[in-house]
Amino acid sequence: MSDKTRFGLDETRIPEAWYNVIPDLKTPLAPPKAFAPDGTELTMDQIGERLAMLFPAECIKQEMSPERYIDIPGAVIDVYKTYRPSPLLRAKALERVLGLPEGIKIFYKYEGVSPAGSHKPNTAIPQAYYNKQEGITKLSTETGAGQWGSALAIAGALFGIDVEVFMVKVSYEQKPYRRILMETYGGTVHASPTSLTDAGRHVLAMDPDSTGSLGIAISEACEVAIKDPGTHYALGSVLNHVCIHQSIIGLEAIEQMALAEEEPDVVIACIGGGSNFAGLAFPYYRRKLDGKSNARLVAVEPKACPTLTAGEYRYDLGDEAGMTPQLLMYTLGHDFVPAGIHAGGLRYHGDSPLVSSLVHDGEVEAVAVDQTACFAAAVQFARAEGILPAPESSHAILAAINEAKAAQAAGEDKVILFNLSGHGHFDLAAYAQYNAGELRDFDFAAGATLHEAE
Amino acid sequence: MSDKTRFGLDETRIPEAWYNVIPDLKTPLAPPKAFAPDGTELTMDQIGERLAMLFPAECIKQEMSPERYIDIPGAVIDVYKTYRPSPLLRAKALERVLGLPEGIKIFYKYEGVSPAGSHKPNTAIPQAYYNKQEGITKLSTETGAGQWGSALAIAGALFGIDVEVFMVKVSYEQKPYRRILMETYGGTVHASPTSLTDAGRHVLAMDPDSTGSLGIAISEACEVAIKDPGTHYALGSVLNHVCIHQSIIGLEAIEQMALAEEEPDVVIACIGGGSNFAGLAFPYYRRKLDGKSNARLVAVEPKACPTLTAGEYRYDLGDEAGMTPQLLMYTLGHDFVPAGIHAGGLRYHGDSPLVSSLVHDGEVEAVAVDQTACFAAAVQFARAEGILPAPESSHAILAAINEAKAAQAAGEDKVILFNLSGHGHFDLAAYAQYNAGELRDFDFAAGATLHEAE
Repeated sequence: MSDKTRFGLDETRIPEAWYNVIPDLKTPLAPPKAFAPDGTELTMDQIGERLAMLFPAECIKQEMSPERYIDIPGAVIDVYKTYRPSPLLRAKALERVLGLPEGIKIFYKYEGVSPAGSHKPNTAIPQAYYNKQEGITKLSTETGAGQWGSALAIAGALFGIDVEVFMVKVSYEQKPYRRILMETYGGTVHASPTSLTDAGRHVLAMDPDSTGSLGIAISEACEVAIKDPGTHYALGSVLNHVCIHQSIIGLEAIEQMALAEEEPDVVIACIGGGSNFAGLAFPYYRRKLDGKSNARLVAVEPKACPTLTAGEYRYDLGDEAGMTPQLLMYTLGHDFVPAGIHAGGLRYHGDSPLVSSLVHDGEVEAVAVDQTACFAAAVQFARAEGILPAPESSHAILAAINEAKAAQAAGEDKVILFNLSGHGHFDLAAYAQYNAGELRDFDFAAGATLHEAE
Repeated sequence: MSDKTRFGLDETRIPEAWYNVIPDLKTPLAPPKAFAPDGTELTMDQIGERLAMLFPAECIKQEMSPERYIDIPGAVIDVYKTYRPSPLLRAKALERVLGLPEGIKIFYKYEGVSPAGSHKPNTAIPQAYYNKQEGITKLSTETGAGQWGSALAIAGALFGIDVEVFMVKVSYEQKPYRRILMETYGGTVHASPTSLTDAGRHVLAMDPDSTGSLGIAISEACEVAIKDPGTHYALGSVLNHVCIHQSIIGLEAIEQMALAEEEPDVVIACIGGGSNFAGLAFPYYRRKLDGKSNARLVAVEPKACPTLTAGEYRYDLGDEAGMTPQLLMYTLGHDFVPAGIHAGGLRYHGDSPLVSSLVHDGEVEAVAVDQTACFAAAVQFARAEGILPAPESSHAILAAINEAKAAQAAGEDKVILFNLSGHGHFDLAAYAQYNAGELRDFDFAAGATLHEAE
């Protein structure tokens, strides 16, 4: 084993191909489903036509690709180089604070060094690139707290493509800094629901004071793309091509753990739509198939939105208004509105079909945790390691600490790897609430907190 | 030359010693001066006694050290490893946007990857360490916008030492996120002036509505340290030991430019108190003495606070109340209150005596620039390179762009290196003003803007 703290890679070690888990699934990928207004099921060709109005051909191809590795375009690697390879660190100070014995080691991959402060640019950059290549001049998207919208605004600026963001109104009003960030990169930001789309007008007609939801914002963004041939839609998680792009995290991590001369026993990441978890875990799943790893793969979700641990495995819509096809996935129902926890990126009713499939087949474990415990873990981590984590990432930290403590109690050695998906510099209002003892937990299973407003 | 974009270094390449410019100054270092209340000049021993109430012995030793290289303690290097070596990048996308010919290249060292988002931890970490080693249990300090206070709060958490921050009241009220950040790391933050100190009570007695100033906050923080033997004071810029600690930036940059197979013709950094500039430029000054570099060293300051370009070179106090010794430096007068530009880190009446000495001897050039032009350069940079710069850092970007354009106009080749000292994720209110066209310039030389409130 290496005694180093930091495992950096030269830019020449940025992977040249992403990993695609589709051909390696235990159960073959279930196709999307969609229905005409009269209830007739659409053919795959018809679904393909619909998708082509939203996404570039290359992303649709990746969405169903049987290829295990997909070449990363040179122009995408050139932009990746501005912040990748991201560092992998050993959390030596955290290990000390926890009083862990020598045999228990905690490593983390840190995605907060990106210009958006999170892992989201890993897919925003190729999506902007592919759309630009295909002559698209504008991308529309939705954003909640603003992480994804910021990443897409940055990628749009880098590739010279306009970005129009429908930001959930309550976040637009409460989180002006993310909006300003998007605007500074040249993005246009609307408080959704707007009167610019049928979907938005429909909502406003029923409730003029609507504070919006991610589902409504998705519907608005899709509508804009469908109505304008020069505009496409971009999604920051859930879909297969997004998981493929995020695989760069795990591919780098495997190289860096080799430098550390360690093989993780458990690989941990938080999960909302699923691309962050997929990014770290899928390359390790492949490594297990190769017989090189025995790692458990653990997805950590909030108890307030426990899609994998309390949802159903069935076909469901990705958005509230039904603009998207149905996907086979774990879901709490497409009309589920999670409680207003601060980990906004984890408040999604469904989960990546790829992650869902692996959970259903027993290849991935899922665990749900409480918000206040996550913040406590985040503050412990910050005071030991220096980095203030995003509330989403804190879920992975808590799970990593729990794994370490369990190993210590059992007298076992353990190498733990988790993904620190972003920094918390945009989340200080949440930390202020935590510091003041004003945070509360929302336990979906306890039934108390459904549909609580944000 | 290398065609790479990113020049990373392994953790083993973190320098093992800082560079100290004192023995290499053209004019020997002028000693500090201090006076008793009756006007009698204090002896150096008496000044030493005063300083010992504020700073650890090791920092005082460094303050006057004739040693060219000073070993970095292993425990400090261990913490540096969590974010260092910081990356050095070639700004290829910016070069493209500017339409530069092949012979003009722009490189930047990026310090925004630190847990505080700026270069400040480079000195906060050793200062916390040395104080901890000497049995100090608490550090007091002042902060304006909060960059320095945040860095010290982080370093205090890492080394188990309490941190008490006097934050200029107007910033405390307008910038709650930095305060929350400090508190999350366990720091105590007061809105200065407070009623906790004689200095604060004196100000409040004269003006109960005082919104504070950096000078008042320094006086309060020093008073707390002087009255409690277990408490020391920590300063984030200006002093020699701070410049020494920041030399890690330039020492790394020299190694990274060697990987790039380029030697800079001009080395640029913004300047407030001076440590950021010193950090990048002093190691290049040494390299010039070694005959290995011909680089011009350019310090960039705001026109609203043009210490080097419009100040006097004379002995002056570091703070408003006169708690600190007098230092020979360029100064606008210790009672000068700069206009409320957004680059809060550059709003200091004086400048590092070391930088001042080199400017006075013609070894360092100084240039003053306008705020709105800096923001325009920052936005151009962000849309090309992805990273949103801190307003302070934008001064260096503007100067780098101006150097590139001048070289292009003259048909010359040029390799430009600048220090991107921090990210702008805490400065979005400033960008909002810029985006809305509401920013204005404050030209000290034009006389219009002195003493304008922040």
